[in-house]
Amino acid sequence: MSTGERRGPVRVAMLGCGTVGSEVVRLLDAQAGDLAARVGAPVELVGVAVRRPQRHADLGDLVTTDAPGLVTRPDVDVVVEVIGGLEPARALLLQALKAGKSVVTANKALLAEDGAALAEAADAAGVDLYYEASVAGAIPLLRPLRESLAGDRITRVAGIVNGTTNFILTAMASSGAGYGDALEEATRLGYAEADPSADVDGYDAASKAAILASLAFHTRVTAADVYCEGIRAVTAADIGAAADLDCVIKLLAICERTPGDDAYPESVSARVYPAMIPRAHPLAGVDGAFNAVFVEAEAAGQLMLYGQGAGGAPTASAVLGDLVAVARNRVAGGRGPRESAYAALPVRPIGAVPTRYHASLHVADRAGVLSAIAGEFAHHGVSIAAVRQTVGGPDGQGARLVVVTHSAPEAALAATVEALAGLDVVIGVDSVLRVEDLGRPSPGVAG
Amino acid sequence: MSTGERRGPVRVAMLGCGTVGSEVVRLLDAQAGDLAARVGAPVELVGVAVRRPQRHADLGDLVTTDAPGLVTRPDVDVVVEVIGGLEPARALLLQALKAGKSVVTANKALLAEDGAALAEAADAAGVDLYYEASVAGAIPLLRPLRESLAGDRITRVAGIVNGTTNFILTAMASSGAGYGDALEEATRLGYAEADPSADVDGYDAASKAAILASLAFHTRVTAADVYCEGIRAVTAADIGAAADLDCVIKLLAICERTPGDDAYPESVSARVYPAMIPRAHPLAGVDGAFNAVFVEAEAAGQLMLYGQGAGGAPTASAVLGDLVAVARNRVAGGRGPRESAYAALPVRPIGAVPTRYHASLHVADRAGVLSAIAGEFAHHGVSIAAVRQTVGGPDGQGARLVVVTHSAPEAALAATVEALAGLDVVIGVDSVLRVEDLGRPSPGVAG
Repeated sequence: MSTGERRGPVRVAMLGCGTVGSEVVRLLDAQAGDLAARVGAPVELVGVAVRRPQRHADLGDLVTTDAPGLVTRPDVDVVVEVIGGLEPARALLLQALKAGKSVVTANKALLAEDGAALAEAADAAGVDLYYEASVAGAIPLLRPLRESLAGDRITRVAGIVNGTTNFILTAMASSGAGYGDALEEATRLGYAEADPSADVDGYDAASKAAILASLAFHTRVTAADVYCEGIRAVTAADIGAAADLDCVIKLLAICERTPGDDAYPESVSARVYPAMIPRAHPLAGVDGAFNAVFVEAEAAGQLMLYGQGAGGAPTASAVLGDLVAVARNRVAGGRGPRESAYAALPVRPIGAVPTRYHASLHVADRAGVLSAIAGEFAHHGVSIAAVRQTVGGPDGQGARLVVVTHSAPEAALAATVEALAGLDVVIGVDSVLRVEDLGRPSPGVAG
Repeated sequence: MSTGERRGPVRVAMLGCGTVGSEVVRLLDAQAGDLAARVGAPVELVGVAVRRPQRHADLGDLVTTDAPGLVTRPDVDVVVEVIGGLEPARALLLQALKAGKSVVTANKALLAEDGAALAEAADAAGVDLYYEASVAGAIPLLRPLRESLAGDRITRVAGIVNGTTNFILTAMASSGAGYGDALEEATRLGYAEADPSADVDGYDAASKAAILASLAFHTRVTAADVYCEGIRAVTAADIGAAADLDCVIKLLAICERTPGDDAYPESVSARVYPAMIPRAHPLAGVDGAFNAVFVEAEAAGQLMLYGQGAGGAPTASAVLGDLVAVARNRVAGGRGPRESAYAALPVRPIGAVPTRYHASLHVADRAGVLSAIAGEFAHHGVSIAAVRQTVGGPDGQGARLVVVTHSAPEAALAATVEALAGLDVVIGVDSVLRVEDLGRPSPGVAG
């Protein structure tokens, strides 16, 4: 539905009007003159579909409860979706695309679940589908991956993409608080929702990882492909163990292109879990509710993009940036770069992903213990990088043994830890954490 | 010269083949399959214009010394320019644009001097002009400013955009070396050129500031509009004075939109100079040859983009990203967002720019000194934020007085310092440095 050169206004319909949507309305009004100059035509809001119109009296005639009618209205050019969730967003956006409307959406759950269907519908209609706001708020991230690095070969995208969990982990590290207390503080300050599961169990980050991996590797990755562990099991002792190694614990979303090896052919991996990272790594210094994503590409080297990953205004800024792009394309009669999944690399199962473990064991304090434990690592083909033994376990009995491994397939590491727990010299496995080096840290960006 | 839907190869001519150009050639070959899949058509290098063809035997038939002939060849779609400098680059690119070729260039000097002429020629021909590689190498910076933040109002772009000077200042800070020794080391390691003037006198950063300010504020800013001081005058004592205040000295390129005040109406300012910034600011931790740019926008808040700002491969990555975008536009029959200078804000002269000064004075140690000095500040309408007096100037005589001011117009500060130097109680002005807070630092990103 490309329309050729035109000068009339670009007409926008919006689905939903919560925190982000009301900020979009405000910016469209406050910046009307600038937006018209940048687009080459006025950008006009012609309708807003909401469930409870009485809450949006300020929008006057713009409000409707008939969302399907709005997205197919003949005078609408672009549909902005900020309701979130799978339905009715999916059905409405598919209707809109089919009717030749370009779409701007912030809906990470929908994109991670069914991005392919949306991309196909956009291609079939020859319209745009933009979703910068779905990952890391105002941080320019999807456009750099999709456009700036389009001539390069991205090897890794790894970052902190959930502000709630980063706030909790930062609070635990700075105050020594346990997970429960830190969550309570986050809830009290409005950084965590009443039901925090989507954040603390990692699902929100997993959706974002699926979107990032899809774009970075030109391969369709869905939320179901992303291995996901949240932060509920992270203890104050884990944070302390990390500090002993000059590391911090962050909830990471990691998307990697991995060359073929003994465990699996060339493939991509997308995973979310709490992991130790060196304090000298630039991501280690990203605290509180901020987000940052580290990108590595063969020619570009290491890049980091940092900013506010959530909130009404930052997310609305990303929505507006997409809206200007889509509107410019309408005015020029073209469309932006389409989705591309040509590489179609397999998704590596978590068991075959190479990683490193840090294990803290409570062991009997007698001859032969270290030999028995080292033997179990060797038996599973896992090479040990460092060992430290100190007298006195948690109860003052036995000894504490900390083992850090070299890189090995996740499945071998998991099997090793399970076997260790069954040894009679092992009184208990106190903590197991992955260690991520994330490449050589750049010289000097962090402390 | 939009060509409608097409499937044939996109044909590329390149001007120059040095460090960046040879990396572009390598990537075009190594990634040919990926690029074709991303563009929707093969991207084919059809000619390379060089001055000394005997040095480029590996390019075989592609090489020519007839640059004007190459850029107007009927089968060429896109011209990539990596020769740098004003001429012959300007004449060749204007010829290319006039002949309907899209242009990708890394030429910061030309863009900062005469970007308007290039943009007009591109508009007149309906073709693309992209130049991501001209500022901060592989860091995605121009595309985020021009597109991601197109729906927002950018208030400041400030950063470290010259790796040579950042390497020198980092070396001075970490080793206590003087400027001369640090420059010598940078030259020995290949971070500074034999004639380092473009870097150390700030001209390179000033060109980049002009490009950034033009894009961020939709206002044409040229290199001549940028106030520029280099780092030759920075002393080990200055670095020490900064450390005393828990600050570091960085060569900053600062582009600001400033509301109207007593000194000047609403305007933009672009300036390059060494300044103290708080050690807690994210830019303070950017060391060595790395670049980073801090962006503030009304809705997006604070963003930081960090990476390798120079070098053959990172710069080639940016060129290739632009080339893919331009080629996609050719295939789709459209063009990307055009230049926009509609805001046309005046450029604020340096004298009217509000800033803060740190002055270190060698003064006589007797009654009335502080009163005389404070009187001079008051006389020029400059408010003092902090004063510290210690006994013993550089020669063990008199006293040392350090004054940090509140924000005041640059002209008032400069006049104050000049007047101080004339007071008979002032033995000497040891150092004067600007202090830039760059907004409230984000919670916690830096050590």
